[in-house]
Amino acid sequence: MRILAIESSAVTASVAILTDDVLTAEYTVNYKKTHSQTLLPMIDEICKMTETEPESFDLIAVSQGPGSFTGLRIGAATGKGIALALDKKMVAVPTLKAMAYNVSETDCLICPVMDARRQHLYTALYRLDKDGKPQEVLAQSLLSYEELIKLLNEKNEPVLFIGDGVVPAKQAFEEGLTCAYKIAPAHICTQRAGSVALAAKDMAEAGEVILSDAFHPEYLRPSQAERELKRGTVSNS
Amino acid sequence: MRILAIESSAVTASVAILTDDVLTAEYTVNYKKTHSQTLLPMIDEICKMTETEPESFDLIAVSQGPGSFTGLRIGAATGKGIALALDKKMVAVPTLKAMAYNVSETDCLICPVMDARRQHLYTALYRLDKDGKPQEVLAQSLLSYEELIKLLNEKNEPVLFIGDGVVPAKQAFEEGLTCAYKIAPAHICTQRAGSVALAAKDMAEAGEVILSDAFHPEYLRPSQAERELKRGTVSNS
Repeated sequence: MRILAIESSAVTASVAILTDDVLTAEYTVNYKKTHSQTLLPMIDEICKMTETEPESFDLIAVSQGPGSFTGLRIGAATGKGIALALDKKMVAVPTLKAMAYNVSETDCLICPVMDARRQHLYTALYRLDKDGKPQEVLAQSLLSYEELIKLLNEKNEPVLFIGDGVVPAKQAFEEGLTCAYKIAPAHICTQRAGSVALAAKDMAEAGEVILSDAFHPEYLRPSQAERELKRGTVSNS
Repeated sequence: MRILAIESSAVTASVAILTDDVLTAEYTVNYKKTHSQTLLPMIDEICKMTETEPESFDLIAVSQGPGSFTGLRIGAATGKGIALALDKKMVAVPTLKAMAYNVSETDCLICPVMDARRQHLYTALYRLDKDGKPQEVLAQSLLSYEELIKLLNEKNEPVLFIGDGVVPAKQAFEEGLTCAYKIAPAHICTQRAGSVALAAKDMAEAGEVILSDAFHPEYLRPSQAERELKRGTVSNS
């Protein structure tokens, strides 16, 4: 099975090719260019370097969200475009689940956190099973700092945080958490397409494959435009 | 501090740019092309994509070995060439130490293993300190399966193996090891330049910076040609 994976949910643009169990190529850029400038050239680059014909992909996996609305839309458009053009199926990988695949080994609850602004986090909880694969304990959610702290204190298990959401929430965690916790080092915290590909492989084996039509970004909350529309601060014309 | 990192000690070709604590770019290819075909174009690619002028590198870090003799020589030649041309200092990163940086979190002894053929492994031992940084317990060594098994059984601590050396040694480990052990999943086992860069940053902060002239690959054993010369099976002409 050959998977093309795309990750553009946050500041990182990352693409990867997974061939069976081998990560044939992975290319990650953490730079100020927008994903619309980087993703397609990066996919082109890794295909050329590894002499991979795009027709040989069995699945197109995209990090579905939550995350940056623009980043998610560019990733979705890129992935859906390729899948439609080549008549390939897709896998919609929850972004926080893919992040949990960055962790190889821990007895802690894995808690990926992405900054959702206004003292909120996109978060979820996973536990590694005996094969080292993340199993969902809490589905992807939008929680306030206080809600997450309360939940983790109730669980009262050691927690491993990964993701950039730790930085703004650090003081709140220090003041509020009564459970033991650690923060993963920087190179484990970043989204990467290799993890999206690995998660997609497991999901595909569990039958979680969709048509490109059915792929939609998962924002977990309405966009600012939608919120303003609902509040009546913009017109619906 | 900006570091260009090169990893070509085994089948993987990988290059990365680390800017302070941010992995600006990382590009890894696991493909049948030789490193002499891939490394320079990959460096060129990530520099162009991130608009990085090669003059802006402070250090050139190269995975020093052990590993494939040819791979190490290509990595060394590439790194030394760039360092010499740009008048930059280098960091010679022990390959197995860089592999230990792939692991973010474990209470186990980390035991990177690379296949050295003939029932031998290139190996070393590390323990993560409280900051999650690998500290050396056993320096890089060439050990037979039996020697490593004996050593680990004497230590009698849980061990986490990473690296492709696990595959050929698996049966010997199963039969011989009396300590608890785990094997890291495939995506953690592969050499990557991002880990070389992180190790190089810590080494540079500890003053372990050298002139490009002083960089030499670390083979840990004589090449086949040198062994045959010593045995008198090839002439020294």
